[in-house]
Amino acid sequence: MSDCIFCKIAAGQIPCTRVYEDEVCLVFMDIQPISPGHTLLIPKKHYDSIMEMPVEESAHLGRQLPALAAAVRAAVKAEALNVLQNNGRAAGQAVSHLHIHLIPRWPGDGLGFRWPAKSADAEVLKRQAEAIRTGLGG
Amino acid sequence: MSDCIFCKIAAGQIPCTRVYEDEVCLVFMDIQPISPGHTLLIPKKHYDSIMEMPVEESAHLGRQLPALAAAVRAAVKAEALNVLQNNGRAAGQAVSHLHIHLIPRWPGDGLGFRWPAKSADAEVLKRQAEAIRTGLGG
Repeated sequence: MSDCIFCKIAAGQIPCTRVYEDEVCLVFMDIQPISPGHTLLIPKKHYDSIMEMPVEESAHLGRQLPALAAAVRAAVKAEALNVLQNNGRAAGQAVSHLHIHLIPRWPGDGLGFRWPAKSADAEVLKRQAEAIRTGLGG
Repeated sequence: MSDCIFCKIAAGQIPCTRVYEDEVCLVFMDIQPISPGHTLLIPKKHYDSIMEMPVEESAHLGRQLPALAAAVRAAVKAEALNVLQNNGRAAGQAVSHLHIHLIPRWPGDGLGFRWPAKSADAEVLKRQAEAIRTGLGG
């Protein structure tokens, strides 16, 4: 997409602090880090969300994650790490080019989630599972 | 692991509201949903974190995500969706068996992150990228 900042970064039209790249994906440092070492993994092709991504490109991103998560954590000597991928503005997605955040974490770093768990109704869960299965075509 | 609740769920020793399974992975409804339709994708084998996961199993999870995310979002008519995977207690991991959260989201749902972005120092980003590359063996 011509007006997408991550497309421009992937094309080398806007500079980034590059970590790794191959034909499918690019890894670079987030310029507005949530914590030290905050890294982004993106597909070079533009997809708004994970829902639109071809299965084998999504597999390729999955293939990068074990070594990349370990390397990010080690680089900043973090104790823990979140892998986060937001789809849609209501989920906190700021740039509409699919990206996976790797966010190093430390005890007491003050970061976290504002989303308390609720208790579940077993019948509701069953209906939801059924609806998801239908969506999967199963 | 004998005392791991997700290992027991994967083995069928503890019931769950199952959505999908194959030889490698299992999808089921979170019993303490953060939002309606909150779904978990896990490998059947026990890994504490993404860092320890064999590359092809991680690719397999990645391969599930596009259709699964679309089906979860559609099942509860959500506007958006977070994909979240926490590694380590300091990152909010409660069960020490790798799991990927799919969390449906709506505008004004009151959920979200408590992690403001900081401005970055270009030299610091360069050193971090270099350290990550070293960790990747590149």
